[in-house]
Amino acid sequence: MLSALYPEFRFLVRKTEAATRARRGCIITPHGVIETPAFIFCGTKASVKGLSPALLKEAETQCCLANTYHLMLQPGADTIQKVGGLHAFMGWNGPLLTDSGGFQVFSLGYGSVADEIKGRRQRSSSVQQISEKGVVFKSYLDGSLREITPETSIQIQRKIGADLVVAFDECTPYHCSRAYTEQALERSHRWETRSLDAFKAYNDGKQALYGVVQGGVYVDLREKSARYVKESPFFGHAIGGTLGAIKEEMYRVIEMTMNHLISAHPVHLLGIGGIRDIFVGVSLGIDTFDCVHPTRIARHGGALVPISLRDHPAREHISLKRASYAEDSSPIDPTCSCATCQQFSRAYLHHLLKAREVLAITALTLHNVFFMNRLMEDIRAALEKNCFTKLCHKWQVSDL
Amino acid sequence: MLSALYPEFRFLVRKTEAATRARRGCIITPHGVIETPAFIFCGTKASVKGLSPALLKEAETQCCLANTYHLMLQPGADTIQKVGGLHAFMGWNGPLLTDSGGFQVFSLGYGSVADEIKGRRQRSSSVQQISEKGVVFKSYLDGSLREITPETSIQIQRKIGADLVVAFDECTPYHCSRAYTEQALERSHRWETRSLDAFKAYNDGKQALYGVVQGGVYVDLREKSARYVKESPFFGHAIGGTLGAIKEEMYRVIEMTMNHLISAHPVHLLGIGGIRDIFVGVSLGIDTFDCVHPTRIARHGGALVPISLRDHPAREHISLKRASYAEDSSPIDPTCSCATCQQFSRAYLHHLLKAREVLAITALTLHNVFFMNRLMEDIRAALEKNCFTKLCHKWQVSDL
Repeated sequence: MLSALYPEFRFLVRKTEAATRARRGCIITPHGVIETPAFIFCGTKASVKGLSPALLKEAETQCCLANTYHLMLQPGADTIQKVGGLHAFMGWNGPLLTDSGGFQVFSLGYGSVADEIKGRRQRSSSVQQISEKGVVFKSYLDGSLREITPETSIQIQRKIGADLVVAFDECTPYHCSRAYTEQALERSHRWETRSLDAFKAYNDGKQALYGVVQGGVYVDLREKSARYVKESPFFGHAIGGTLGAIKEEMYRVIEMTMNHLISAHPVHLLGIGGIRDIFVGVSLGIDTFDCVHPTRIARHGGALVPISLRDHPAREHISLKRASYAEDSSPIDPTCSCATCQQFSRAYLHHLLKAREVLAITALTLHNVFFMNRLMEDIRAALEKNCFTKLCHKWQVSDL
Repeated sequence: MLSALYPEFRFLVRKTEAATRARRGCIITPHGVIETPAFIFCGTKASVKGLSPALLKEAETQCCLANTYHLMLQPGADTIQKVGGLHAFMGWNGPLLTDSGGFQVFSLGYGSVADEIKGRRQRSSSVQQISEKGVVFKSYLDGSLREITPETSIQIQRKIGADLVVAFDECTPYHCSRAYTEQALERSHRWETRSLDAFKAYNDGKQALYGVVQGGVYVDLREKSARYVKESPFFGHAIGGTLGAIKEEMYRVIEMTMNHLISAHPVHLLGIGGIRDIFVGVSLGIDTFDCVHPTRIARHGGALVPISLRDHPAREHISLKRASYAEDSSPIDPTCSCATCQQFSRAYLHHLLKAREVLAITALTLHNVFFMNRLMEDIRAALEKNCFTKLCHKWQVSDL
């Protein structure tokens, strides 16, 4: 039945680790294969900041995502469809994912996405009205009122044309009560079912739909949501919404959710992408991750480095803005074979950042993308060779 | 005698056109050969906006320049020397040029460089004092007082380590009286002689010094200055300072100057780089050009195009910010083989500009750099095949 809905997609699990739930697999899409575990890079407005498709490929990227919320507002889904869909628009011929737009609708407007969902602030005032039908929100571009419903989200994602698409849900923030979270969850499930119906109505076999597990930090709600998603004909499962305000809570929520979610479907963890987080996620059975983290820190001078080059054991990147790098003629990481480490010294990158040169963004983003892809490749290789735990130790991750 | 001063440099003229003074030659430097006529791209702060050295090479760039003024203030010449010189610092192994710092000292501070020198405003107040010794100016970064003299300019350029370096002069703006221009010119000649002395004192054979012809729009002063430069042991000759407020005046000043300057030395025209300007310059015997124009317009959405794609016969670029490109799925130029035209549509570039994505800068800069390099290659090929005049007609340039 699922293969009828998604004729051009398959998820294969090649191997599952004995000691954990970590698994080595692949997602087959019409635009190529994603070897898993994999990291998906954020190209919010149909561009991974500063990187051309050629550079993304050079950095061994498998899959990118774009945000439906941003693209529906500008340039608009119709425009993207008219010029041949997102792949042609971006010049990226590999697999692509779009989210439903829900996360940004509920979190953008006045402040950063992460602040909202990670428990640092109250719900944004960009949401004007939530009803059974959908959400009325204010555009972040011009403040105009827009509506998004499960049906329009799927129609927009159809026009945009990514390979992997996501059902529309309500993304409840950290500060919500249990009662509100449960009520929103029930509505989200109804919205996700409507998303499925809308998906089926125009299905051309070129897209695969992911269902999203919500439920905030409430373990029984996560279980309920995992059950709903597993029992519905989604191609993949995603874990969304708030996972807690601190790492330990987040890992616990993911673990409790995965207890009820693990199956033959690929599982995507939305918006999580620290190095330690990825090791924990993989060990719990997560197949794909996405996060703005590697590309966002790049824009602020942060370069991901191996343990041996860290300033502080728990800090996963170094900040090249620091004056101590001003005359450091070594590359970010002498063992890294990315174009940035092959060409540029820390001194030059420090200078570019200080001079606010655009090349700093391109060069550091390229390094971080390459770093994440190499990390995922190392994880996949370790899973193949039954030495994932050893790799975790190498990276000093002991939360497993 | 010159070959003793510049043992690793040579300028060869292979062919001079019969109908004009246009010539096909090459400048041999320790970091490679510059085939002339050539365009030199501005990497003000040791970076051509958004382009890595690999992309610059891919766009067939021969030579870049960096500005001594900017680099002496940040990161500082000592830092560049410590990390191995400008070539290593930038990761660019081809020929490089630095200017003397004079142009920016006299024009930066409060407003754009071009405004000052092209007659649109009075002398900047960043200059605090001009004396026989040199110039005291305010740093554009922090307002601190700095001094630059012929000797320090050459010492700084020595530390930076470009192949081609420029003597220190006073760059008089358009609004100067004839009397002031003449007085400044005489002092510039004394400064240039001191530059030569400073150059000789530490000459290691790895750099070649250009003398600069000043004299504003006054033809007899240009003649006097051309004579001084020709009679001094400079490797190359540059035409600097204000050339007038309108194109016709500029072409006339260049022509009058070239009447007295033409010789076996390479001639560089400082800061001029429109398409029509280049055809006129080449026909008058100019060998190399530099200008921020191609890279600056790129940052504002301007893409250089052939005559057939222009919006208006006299407008050398199209503006991709225009709404009419929003759904245009063709590349900037279907005949262009640059990476941008191979990968991206006008619609996508329009979107990137509107979304203020960094990739817009990289992609458009790459196109414009490639465009200029292809134009110069076409000019060189036409000179070789004795059809330069035909190429001028093709580009509808009739000022020759």
